[in-house]
Amino acid sequence: MRPHYNGRILLSCYCFLLISFSLYAQQKQPVDYVNPFIGTGAVNGSLSGNNFPGATSPFGMVQLSPDTRAEPGWSTASGYDYNDDKIYGFSHTHLSGTGAAELFDILVMPFNGELYTGKQPVSSFSHTDERARPGYYQVRLKDYGVNAELTTTTRTGFHQYTYAAGSDRNLVIDLMHSADKGSWSFRITQAQIRVVDAYTIEGYRIVSSWAKLRKVYFYARFSQPVIKTVLTDGGHVKNATNVVNGTGVKAYLQFKNDTQPLLVKIGLSPVSITNAKANLQAENPGWNFETIKQAAMQNWNKELQKITVTGTEQQQQIFYTALYHTFIQPNTLSDVNGQFMAANFTTQQLPAGKTHYSTFSLWDTYRAVHPLYTLVQRSRTADFVNSLLAQYEVYGYLPIWQLWGQDNYCMIGNHAIPVITDAVLKNIPGINKEKAYQAVKQSSLQSHLNAPFDVWEKYGYMPENIQTQSVSITLEMAYDDWCLAQLAKHLHKNEDYRYFLKRSQFYKNIFNPATNFFQAKDDKGNWLPDFDPFQYGANGGNPFTEGNAWQYFWYVPQNIKGLIEMVGGDKTFTAKLDSFFTIDKQSDHINNNASGFIGQYAHGNEPSHHVAYLYSYAGMPAKTQYYTAKIMRELYTTTSAGYAGNEDCGQMSAWYVLSALGFYPVNPANGVYIFGSPLFAQATIQLEGQKKFIIKTKKQSDKDIYIQSVTLNGKPYLYNYIQHSTIEKGGELVFTMGPMPDANWGRDVLARPME
Amino acid sequence: MRPHYNGRILLSCYCFLLISFSLYAQQKQPVDYVNPFIGTGAVNGSLSGNNFPGATSPFGMVQLSPDTRAEPGWSTASGYDYNDDKIYGFSHTHLSGTGAAELFDILVMPFNGELYTGKQPVSSFSHTDERARPGYYQVRLKDYGVNAELTTTTRTGFHQYTYAAGSDRNLVIDLMHSADKGSWSFRITQAQIRVVDAYTIEGYRIVSSWAKLRKVYFYARFSQPVIKTVLTDGGHVKNATNVVNGTGVKAYLQFKNDTQPLLVKIGLSPVSITNAKANLQAENPGWNFETIKQAAMQNWNKELQKITVTGTEQQQQIFYTALYHTFIQPNTLSDVNGQFMAANFTTQQLPAGKTHYSTFSLWDTYRAVHPLYTLVQRSRTADFVNSLLAQYEVYGYLPIWQLWGQDNYCMIGNHAIPVITDAVLKNIPGINKEKAYQAVKQSSLQSHLNAPFDVWEKYGYMPENIQTQSVSITLEMAYDDWCLAQLAKHLHKNEDYRYFLKRSQFYKNIFNPATNFFQAKDDKGNWLPDFDPFQYGANGGNPFTEGNAWQYFWYVPQNIKGLIEMVGGDKTFTAKLDSFFTIDKQSDHINNNASGFIGQYAHGNEPSHHVAYLYSYAGMPAKTQYYTAKIMRELYTTTSAGYAGNEDCGQMSAWYVLSALGFYPVNPANGVYIFGSPLFAQATIQLEGQKKFIIKTKKQSDKDIYIQSVTLNGKPYLYNYIQHSTIEKGGELVFTMGPMPDANWGRDVLARPME
Repeated sequence: MRPHYNGRILLSCYCFLLISFSLYAQQKQPVDYVNPFIGTGAVNGSLSGNNFPGATSPFGMVQLSPDTRAEPGWSTASGYDYNDDKIYGFSHTHLSGTGAAELFDILVMPFNGELYTGKQPVSSFSHTDERARPGYYQVRLKDYGVNAELTTTTRTGFHQYTYAAGSDRNLVIDLMHSADKGSWSFRITQAQIRVVDAYTIEGYRIVSSWAKLRKVYFYARFSQPVIKTVLTDGGHVKNATNVVNGTGVKAYLQFKNDTQPLLVKIGLSPVSITNAKANLQAENPGWNFETIKQAAMQNWNKELQKITVTGTEQQQQIFYTALYHTFIQPNTLSDVNGQFMAANFTTQQLPAGKTHYSTFSLWDTYRAVHPLYTLVQRSRTADFVNSLLAQYEVYGYLPIWQLWGQDNYCMIGNHAIPVITDAVLKNIPGINKEKAYQAVKQSSLQSHLNAPFDVWEKYGYMPENIQTQSVSITLEMAYDDWCLAQLAKHLHKNEDYRYFLKRSQFYKNIFNPATNFFQAKDDKGNWLPDFDPFQYGANGGNPFTEGNAWQYFWYVPQNIKGLIEMVGGDKTFTAKLDSFFTIDKQSDHINNNASGFIGQYAHGNEPSHHVAYLYSYAGMPAKTQYYTAKIMRELYTTTSAGYAGNEDCGQMSAWYVLSALGFYPVNPANGVYIFGSPLFAQATIQLEGQKKFIIKTKKQSDKDIYIQSVTLNGKPYLYNYIQHSTIEKGGELVFTMGPMPDANWGRDVLARPME
Repeated sequence: MRPHYNGRILLSCYCFLLISFSLYAQQKQPVDYVNPFIGTGAVNGSLSGNNFPGATSPFGMVQLSPDTRAEPGWSTASGYDYNDDKIYGFSHTHLSGTGAAELFDILVMPFNGELYTGKQPVSSFSHTDERARPGYYQVRLKDYGVNAELTTTTRTGFHQYTYAAGSDRNLVIDLMHSADKGSWSFRITQAQIRVVDAYTIEGYRIVSSWAKLRKVYFYARFSQPVIKTVLTDGGHVKNATNVVNGTGVKAYLQFKNDTQPLLVKIGLSPVSITNAKANLQAENPGWNFETIKQAAMQNWNKELQKITVTGTEQQQQIFYTALYHTFIQPNTLSDVNGQFMAANFTTQQLPAGKTHYSTFSLWDTYRAVHPLYTLVQRSRTADFVNSLLAQYEVYGYLPIWQLWGQDNYCMIGNHAIPVITDAVLKNIPGINKEKAYQAVKQSSLQSHLNAPFDVWEKYGYMPENIQTQSVSITLEMAYDDWCLAQLAKHLHKNEDYRYFLKRSQFYKNIFNPATNFFQAKDDKGNWLPDFDPFQYGANGGNPFTEGNAWQYFWYVPQNIKGLIEMVGGDKTFTAKLDSFFTIDKQSDHINNNASGFIGQYAHGNEPSHHVAYLYSYAGMPAKTQYYTAKIMRELYTTTSAGYAGNEDCGQMSAWYVLSALGFYPVNPANGVYIFGSPLFAQATIQLEGQKKFIIKTKKQSDKDIYIQSVTLNGKPYLYNYIQHSTIEKGGELVFTMGPMPDANWGRDVLARPME
């Protein structure tokens, strides 16, 4: 379609790239620091980040990455484990950092030898033959002598396979490949592969698993003609046909021998083959692998440049990789023509210029990832919010964890609420506030899984015998109610404000002054017996969710001041924090997700993430500075085990990004960032409208982790926090650091974080 | 939407009905003879017709009918068994006459007493309190004292429930209700019920079963307000919500007490709630049950008037009920706005004025139902063909058995081919012949389930050890190839003609002259040992499909003359037919579907359907007349056991309709109808363009079953068959009958059926 037009675009693009390259050669760019292998594999039995090293574009639909397992499971949720030594192929969709395995659509694997033997092609590989950069991945498949290179656009994958001279040039396209088929009631409802012509195949699979039902259509083009095809379904060869419909379909293709590498480009769509083809034609009409690869890298660089830092090579690697991980998702789920599949399984049409996103790991990402987006992804933040609202429209409430447009109800709380509240209160343009309010309110009234609001309102807490995970849910739900109350207040809905503000106090009903912990009650109001603050819960059957009473004690982000008072004031609170960070005792039954320990603090899972910042609320900012500096330095590395636990769709990364800048949103919806210990001599946040917010850190070193003084735009700044509205204006924040805590700085009651 | 406009339409409609009624009172109309209870329940352990008694509109999307089983199974595939005495509710979609249970979407059941007890409402009923007419069903639910009345438009159901005065007015809307959940890997992927307001609920279910994936959306309106609601999922009450998303959702609704009956109207759509609502607004905007009921009956009458007959009350009941059953499906699957879900799970848009149909039980219906449609449903025939072609477009080949737009591959052969061939050769307008040809050709080249064309072409038959059901498939595939050859010839594709004509001869390769039967060979060309012509096969694991070698011997509809020669000429052939109709010996393992026996002849299943007409090809028309007269009189009744076996989406009925008119298409794609023994003194086929074809039968009686002479338009007519092209012109065919065979009529070689 319109080849001339596309040709011109590409040409201009190419010229631009040439110019960029000349600049680029002179100076190392943010994209150059990204190491996609960080988080791809644990060591010594720790928890993997579950990131993938493959190619993807910012917030893209396609994540084209190697799968090192035939059926990736929970511990290899991204499909790749750095400790593995075999590759089963390159599939087009992956989750980054989740604790559950899904997607892995449209696996492509080059091989040689006999075209069809009934065995799945698999090759050993070595990390010495492997390279990854944002938007580009390369590996040598030892067993087949094939050099595989991958790149992407938003909705397409582009493969370049260089076979050994003279060898068979085979490829399998596998629609049966998936996560462990025993998990999540996995089921392929139907799939199709059709050989359109010697250069083209198309098809789809309809699959139900962690997402209730995904439709994944594809349209694939080859640079060289297919000369032999074997189509199979469920391992049975289907002769004499150019189309196979079934539940386990694969195409084995042999290509003409040639001295040129084989190029394969594949467009994806959640709507139709027609759209998959249109996506491919719009985003990658040509055959220049290098052009697309460079464009992908430039796209990444453009996004990563939104925050630039000066630091050591290692710090910059960690920082830019973290920023990269936060920009992998939410994932584009609409086609270039604006169509997408809504949560009620209908095809919907977006207004022009809008994108529909999914992959909302909200229990993780509402904490720091979404606040980060409000700084550097404002336009996308509106699209994210509108994508969440789209579920409300057809589903009756906002998603808990949304995957490919379908709520899988993973985890607890209704943390689309803080995300939306934060965006509205920060006045992100492009959001209908009234519609947002209705969605948030209804989602706080319509009972659904793990959110029985009738129980909530009747008891003023979740009784464990009625709603399991009751302590965690009570705490998190109270926070969501607080957000809703703020949104009501913002929109002058005073009655609603008072109503939900009251609900936001319910956490007080499960505080046991006898133990100074939040504890589970039954529906008679009795504390559950045999309380053990070290005991972990998982995802049901226990009052705590993936944590223990120690870790959940701190979860009142809407009222830390009140929490301090609850336990008797600053000293008791600080002492409790000290215990938290130092008591090494561990339960015999630690939840899988808890890892990265400093005492009871578990940086590997989200409930702990804000806790180091709480010292500041009790007038002990130096301890916040100490622990945040320690976590940044000890629990983030440049190895494949670079994260202390699952990276969780950007949350582990966003903690680092913000903490390294010097602040963190303890309450992710009140626009207040609490100071920690800034890591870089200089960091620049590129804001909208050419504005910049520059953070300078004088006397920055691994020992000089304590804030001595701060200035904002040259004037002394006495507060231990900064507001979003201040950052938004642009300006210069200067920290002066030292090796010992300043006796006074940030300790005054007035300096304490605003609530 | 446009209430004025709709109001006017309805008013005109109503006036028209008043006029109709005054005429109507004077004369019994075709619709008055229809008895929807025929075929709804077997007696003495015979096979049920599996028809439903509920309300539906001609070729409608909705079949609103009582379900007498909680989870209807194979033997109650329509949901209703006349022998049952309990009703579980009224669901909106049913299959008519199939041997497999599916659909049963959106069950509605009125009840009273406590609104939610955890138990499924169910009531006893009696046939004395039950009435059914085309488009209308009524029953008194004894246990609840509710009089239930149902009617329909094409895409909507309309319920009128008259509760006992003062009783609770409860209703359950059940999206969990289905066929036996253990069968067909039944699975509800997701469902939703949402209480929109006191008068409205909406929702959907996404369900995979015999059809791979169906999306069924609904929009329901009530005449009175809901005053209490209980929503459940999987038997768990969901408090404090007006929406429930899950896999087993139900709504228990209590309505305001009122002296008026409760009216419930529900629109369905396979695309979206929006479309379901639009369907309801377009087809039933008001609240007049009687108006819609009368309109439904008038719609039926309009269709049934296409063939009018004079006969006994019983004969007319059987005839018009049979005609009614042939017009229940194929079912409308597109919405009023022309959208439908295509076989590749995308939403497609029809051109204005077109309808998309599904429910193609082709192995049954290609034999007589589709030829009947070419006479009296010409416009719909084009839509049927185009609906079949729509699958080809996205699926690569035509359907085997298409249910709600999805091929379930039930049975064998590719009998969309004779359907399309017949329609094209009869020059039905609105079909793109070239497109139809490509679909037919590709479906005869693209191997798929039970149709491995590479094996077919390699061996010239299906070897049983490679493709089971090999004899049945070889015979039926040869016929489909013959059809394709004729289509090629018609379109002057001479090379293709020769190619497929050659394939159509492959049946000869499995004829064993030593036994005079078609028998299975292996891939070495050896006959399979231990041949027993009485032994039945089912649907795999045996050379024969739902029949035995006796029943399949006759399956060469494209060349009966050749078949006669194969066994040694007229006498041998006639003797073999005599044996077929008289040998009572039965295998110990009769297939379930074989029933309605006359010797080996089994009228209860399709392979026998054309056989009584074969005598005429061997110069013994009197025996055709004898057996067809016998079958019509003995194997069709007005009881619930009125069919000799499953009615099979109209095929059992179409056999009767055509045979009663006096002819039957032995070859369903050559436009030739073989004379049998006409049943009615007069029958009139209303053709297009005000033309009529009148069949008069002089001296017609139960004894005068033999044709003595025939005239066409007043002139002697010596042929024992009539061509479609002759009927199409209109005219008058007069049979003169007698109690004994005429010595000469129809016996001459020239009189024999044209091939």
